[in-house]
Amino acid sequence: MFSSISRKVLRPRVDWFRPTPELEAELKQIEARILHQASQFDAGAEGYVRHALEGGGKRLRPALVLMAGKAAGGWSESIRDLAVIVELVHVASLIHDDVLDRAELRRSRATCNAKWGTELSVLLGDALFAHGLQLATKLEDAEVARKIAEASRNLCEGEILQTQRRFDLKMSTADYLHLVGLKTGALFRAAAEVPFLLHRCSETRREAARSFGYQLGMAYQIYDDVLDLTGTDEESGKTLGTDLKKGKWTLPVLHALQTLPAAESELLRAGLVEGNGEVVSKIRAAGGIRFSLRKAVDLLERAKGDLQVLGDPHGDLQVLTERLQEFFRQWEG
Amino acid sequence: MFSSISRKVLRPRVDWFRPTPELEAELKQIEARILHQASQFDAGAEGYVRHALEGGGKRLRPALVLMAGKAAGGWSESIRDLAVIVELVHVASLIHDDVLDRAELRRSRATCNAKWGTELSVLLGDALFAHGLQLATKLEDAEVARKIAEASRNLCEGEILQTQRRFDLKMSTADYLHLVGLKTGALFRAAAEVPFLLHRCSETRREAARSFGYQLGMAYQIYDDVLDLTGTDEESGKTLGTDLKKGKWTLPVLHALQTLPAAESELLRAGLVEGNGEVVSKIRAAGGIRFSLRKAVDLLERAKGDLQVLGDPHGDLQVLTERLQEFFRQWEG
Repeated sequence: MFSSISRKVLRPRVDWFRPTPELEAELKQIEARILHQASQFDAGAEGYVRHALEGGGKRLRPALVLMAGKAAGGWSESIRDLAVIVELVHVASLIHDDVLDRAELRRSRATCNAKWGTELSVLLGDALFAHGLQLATKLEDAEVARKIAEASRNLCEGEILQTQRRFDLKMSTADYLHLVGLKTGALFRAAAEVPFLLHRCSETRREAARSFGYQLGMAYQIYDDVLDLTGTDEESGKTLGTDLKKGKWTLPVLHALQTLPAAESELLRAGLVEGNGEVVSKIRAAGGIRFSLRKAVDLLERAKGDLQVLGDPHGDLQVLTERLQEFFRQWEG
Repeated sequence: MFSSISRKVLRPRVDWFRPTPELEAELKQIEARILHQASQFDAGAEGYVRHALEGGGKRLRPALVLMAGKAAGGWSESIRDLAVIVELVHVASLIHDDVLDRAELRRSRATCNAKWGTELSVLLGDALFAHGLQLATKLEDAEVARKIAEASRNLCEGEILQTQRRFDLKMSTADYLHLVGLKTGALFRAAAEVPFLLHRCSETRREAARSFGYQLGMAYQIYDDVLDLTGTDEESGKTLGTDLKKGKWTLPVLHALQTLPAAESELLRAGLVEGNGEVVSKIRAAGGIRFSLRKAVDLLERAKGDLQVLGDPHGDLQVLTERLQEFFRQWEG
């Protein structure tokens, strides 16, 4: 199924994630801290944990913690720990995602399930998740653990909704945005908010940071979903095209289904259910991809509004948001 | 494989878990609180959570929290929340266990994976676990969340070790006890200790409570493992015999392997690897079951020693421990 999907799409060349040298140096330290977590596990589990953590990737969530931390008042040990914690929760969720999607490639390496099978991968995800929450409970401010636990629970709820709605052709775009908010928005929200909490900033700034993180997370997930539809495995370093195969109708698909004339929408429905390779070009022709990227740009516009309130003295968050917007706009073409 | 295993063993009729009327009434309240947790989830997830929580069972861990709570100074809202939290973590781990074991029956009902498949069950376990930890972070004393997160991480590490050592005929009984301590001992330890922490009891009493819970948990897991080998599905309400099929060599197996004369041990090894139905009688004849139950009795003897230090004014913990010992002794024959 879907083996003949044409994924050729002109991809923009904007290097949207370009940390400042200062941030890059700090991210290297965070990377070392992330890898160091493996040594905290029982000797029998350490090797697996190390492989799972060595995957690398952009570490976008830790970067967001650091940028928000700098905007809120500077980097502290707690901020650095927080950067590690959000990444642990994220990596744990990726491990379980890959189990459920039977994905073989992640960040250009074999996934845990491809390497060690389902059983160990389920347990490894559990262990990383528990470890992340344990680290959170060790921070002095008990509110941090509360926020991380809440975001983690939301993430799980979002994943449940997503699984439940698989192959549901009646899913609305509102349903999609609700589940994306839980699945991805919540952890980005915590990553942006908690630094303001640690620096005891005003409730107004905290709330703006919450909102900023949430919009950014939603926009990022929409981008990730568009990439799954149109990218190639080589470009992204992970197994793509799994959403369609697994019946996860993302925003481009849902938009196309809901805006195409009845007869064409019916054809698309049939193509989706049969796993027909023509569906991606149908979705693109229906403007599903353009609509989704525009939605992401709009979300980032609201995020920029939040930046006015939260205060972004060094402009890091502003630059990140604008580069992402530019990237989406060029892609949209 | 193992379809012809003879599991006929004379089982004692000791009703070892017989809560006082006061405890029974309180456990009913806790049960209602456990079920109430389902309503805390997103509407799309609520039904699944409700099924998972309705399974019932003895609720031994909540009972331990309540008994320890009474010994430490009485029942409070925090103690009741703690009883719910430890059960949520336990239920989450059972859901993942059943996924990994492909078990179909749990507490005489269809398991989540039998009902809804692997994907939803993995996510449901994650969500319950995250919810339990979230509840823990809401308690006033931040130390509670720390203890629960630590116990949860240990539980995951124990499960990883168990999976890693499957079919490992060179596993020692010490390895087994180490992993059982992580897998089961740690959560019992937290269930017994945290009430003493909430009541701000002395470090000496807390330490004794920790040790008591740990020994009790180890003894209980040994019993559970013996049951998997010798019980019937009808009696226990869950799919049994999965340990042998999955290559989990528990204490009776390991003891038999290590004490039988070389030639017989070799035959047992071959039987285990081939899935030969005669192995259970071989293990029994080698004294593996008797040895394991005796080990459990010894652990409970040490737990009784801890009771002298922690103080058990109402004698509930003493009665529980002695009834379990009596149960194991009668079984041992």
